[in-house]
Amino acid sequence: MKEKQQNILIIGAGLCGSLLALRLGQRGYNVAVYEMRPDLRKVDISAGRSINLAFSNRGNKAMKLVGIEDKVKALCIPMNGRMIHDKKGNTYLSNYSGRKHEYINSISRGELNGLLLTEAEKHKNVSIYFNKKCKSVDFKKTTALFQDYKTKDEFVEDADIIIATDGAGSAMRKSYYLGKKFLFSFSQDYLTHGYKELTILPKKNGDYKIYKNALHIWPRGSFMLIALPNLDGSFTVTLFLSYDEGEYNFNNLTTEKKVLEFFLKEFPDALTLMPNLVNYFFKNPTSPLGTVKCYPWHYKGNTLLMGDAAHAIVPFYGQGMNASFEDVVEFDKVLDKNLESWEATFNTYEKTRKKDTDAIADLAIDNFHEMKDHVAKTVFQEKRKLEMALEENFPNEYSSKYALVTFNEDIGYREAMLKGRAQDKAILNLLSDGKIDLKEDLKIILKKVKQETEAILEDDRIVRLK
Amino acid sequence: MKEKQQNILIIGAGLCGSLLALRLGQRGYNVAVYEMRPDLRKVDISAGRSINLAFSNRGNKAMKLVGIEDKVKALCIPMNGRMIHDKKGNTYLSNYSGRKHEYINSISRGELNGLLLTEAEKHKNVSIYFNKKCKSVDFKKTTALFQDYKTKDEFVEDADIIIATDGAGSAMRKSYYLGKKFLFSFSQDYLTHGYKELTILPKKNGDYKIYKNALHIWPRGSFMLIALPNLDGSFTVTLFLSYDEGEYNFNNLTTEKKVLEFFLKEFPDALTLMPNLVNYFFKNPTSPLGTVKCYPWHYKGNTLLMGDAAHAIVPFYGQGMNASFEDVVEFDKVLDKNLESWEATFNTYEKTRKKDTDAIADLAIDNFHEMKDHVAKTVFQEKRKLEMALEENFPNEYSSKYALVTFNEDIGYREAMLKGRAQDKAILNLLSDGKIDLKEDLKIILKKVKQETEAILEDDRIVRLK
Repeated sequence: MKEKQQNILIIGAGLCGSLLALRLGQRGYNVAVYEMRPDLRKVDISAGRSINLAFSNRGNKAMKLVGIEDKVKALCIPMNGRMIHDKKGNTYLSNYSGRKHEYINSISRGELNGLLLTEAEKHKNVSIYFNKKCKSVDFKKTTALFQDYKTKDEFVEDADIIIATDGAGSAMRKSYYLGKKFLFSFSQDYLTHGYKELTILPKKNGDYKIYKNALHIWPRGSFMLIALPNLDGSFTVTLFLSYDEGEYNFNNLTTEKKVLEFFLKEFPDALTLMPNLVNYFFKNPTSPLGTVKCYPWHYKGNTLLMGDAAHAIVPFYGQGMNASFEDVVEFDKVLDKNLESWEATFNTYEKTRKKDTDAIADLAIDNFHEMKDHVAKTVFQEKRKLEMALEENFPNEYSSKYALVTFNEDIGYREAMLKGRAQDKAILNLLSDGKIDLKEDLKIILKKVKQETEAILEDDRIVRLK
Repeated sequence: MKEKQQNILIIGAGLCGSLLALRLGQRGYNVAVYEMRPDLRKVDISAGRSINLAFSNRGNKAMKLVGIEDKVKALCIPMNGRMIHDKKGNTYLSNYSGRKHEYINSISRGELNGLLLTEAEKHKNVSIYFNKKCKSVDFKKTTALFQDYKTKDEFVEDADIIIATDGAGSAMRKSYYLGKKFLFSFSQDYLTHGYKELTILPKKNGDYKIYKNALHIWPRGSFMLIALPNLDGSFTVTLFLSYDEGEYNFNNLTTEKKVLEFFLKEFPDALTLMPNLVNYFFKNPTSPLGTVKCYPWHYKGNTLLMGDAAHAIVPFYGQGMNASFEDVVEFDKVLDKNLESWEATFNTYEKTRKKDTDAIADLAIDNFHEMKDHVAKTVFQEKRKLEMALEENFPNEYSSKYALVTFNEDIGYREAMLKGRAQDKAILNLLSDGKIDLKEDLKIILKKVKQETEAILEDDRIVRLK
């Protein structure tokens, strides 16, 4: 079925779509990509979207697949851990791993997307069209309706298959939902919190105002501020805050005075770093945080959802882009199987992949509570210190949940979640029951943690009656 | 705010809507109910909807509230337990509780709905209009657009508040979703299984062909058949089966021969009871099984979703109708508080109620696996026997998860779920680790179960870092 002359239409040239176009181009397919925005290499369209992102092993695996690992590395700023800022301005660095080579990176969305577009366009069999907005997809006919942003003309494109990588607000997913031609499970879940981006500018000499190689967090229980470094010496700062709960919230932070009062009380050191705070606060939009899940992703052998269009997640595990890139790696693996039809290909991909994207969606919600709240708690800090020590001393025998999710790209998110959650529970319970003495031989602690983890997993297996 | 002259528009006169109309009528409000179907007291409209339902304590609490407990009792057939049918036709009765007064009932949807409509219409301040289909709701203006089924004329009704009890396919919920005027979390999740209704007719003398006072189950691991008694001596039988997985499924049961082969192999005793099987099989529709959750349910002080419109669940806990009736009881409690506005009333109702309807939705999915599969497994049967003995011997000290959910109407579904799941896990783990000897003194077993349950709940509390 998959003669290379097959025409593949991709909707959306964001991070996932441009990587997919590049990979399918490398495989020899005729690829046409339609993107609703202008070419971000020519026009600044950063407003309203996150400016920088966390990039880690799963994403990097995809970069290796398409052979641009080195080019991407040049765009990366390593972040070795979380720098936690308390209310008094004290800071505390908590590494992401006890293994030195395990860290995440801050990367510019625009730069990376631009690189992927440029690499994709090097293939003669790949064409990218900008300013063409998808209005709907006729998944039975395998056609998509587009509107040209400038002329407002509408036109229909057809293809052998259509893959929609058009993000959390996917037009094709909407067509699945509204079409009611098959049982389409779908969810959109908003957090009660929204987010707003702010900026810490560089020093006059271009240096970073705070430690460059960390993801900075100001955890305050029910809300938080974070900051990720950019190559130009600035930090992109994000405030995560409830829309309508608590003393200060997005709905009542309506005056300069109140915003300053809030930051002075909760984030005094961050306020000092952002003399421009109020300007950004009122200029930048407040955006919602949502999780989208759906099933099935494909319709017969005609259409397939990938990336955020299939599984949008909240940003708290730093895995959104990495998960979408991993989609392409996993899809590529299925293509290698040379199955008898696109339907079989889509089916196989979706059956193996869905459990993992569900898992990372749930992990990302967990991490919201961890980042804004738990990281500031003693028992959690004890757990993290212990895990660092275990990873450092037994690098081949222990990986924390964070490491399993972030640095172990050869196991799926679901496996990482199940094992990681059991480990967390084991350590917290052992600590809280006084069954671990932190002065004990680490080898004995490791043994206890492993035994308790296995007991927890076994108890859960029994309850599932398997 | 709540002068009794307030006009309340209810969309949908199903079980929830007619009970709500009755209760609000009793409270003195002006109530207008619009229902898309004809009056079921005059026209048979059972096709495609479940004919009988499980009715239990939570539902009965609502009947007490509106003073029609005795009238409803006359419609009930008690079911004391599950009668399990194995492949050889052996049967095995597993009671729902060790306490004799705890049982569920089979009740006719049509009869009960008719009774509620008649009781509601006794109030001069309640009007019910049939054959008026709601097309959409303008929740900002508090108006609803209807179409008359016969004349096809469209008309708009306004009211002080609108409450939509228009079921799983709610028009108002769709208006919330498509309106995009606020952050609306929404999910529809379909099982891979569908269902089809069949019938066991009475004997020629009108007697029941199988034991009357049980819910019959033919569990077969990945699919099942169930039967609930009707007052006329018949049983309504439901086949739950995958659409497309397994050797036999709804998509491949397309010929009389194959249907008979399937039943002969899997349900030989049921086949004997249904000489008419094939007729019903091909006459009756195959329907999907879905869970709907959403949030928020209300828009300001204008509109509110209740019943299946807010939280449709799969039928496996027998709690769908009971949960919707309980909605009315809980809403009534909030009305008693005499809050300052409808917005405060809706807000308070939704904040307390949502956690419980989420819980029963999840419990109902759990019970799908329990009914089709676990009930046939030895360890599960041991657990149930032990629970019966505990309930019988310590009626005030032990209630199983099933009893907590079904017979303990004074605790919420969420509390029942958390405690019930911990108990299940405790017993299964104690049994499987050989830590309970079934010949032991029951008092000792009870103590062990309680200790283990508390330990599990405590471990979970620690992990939530509270």
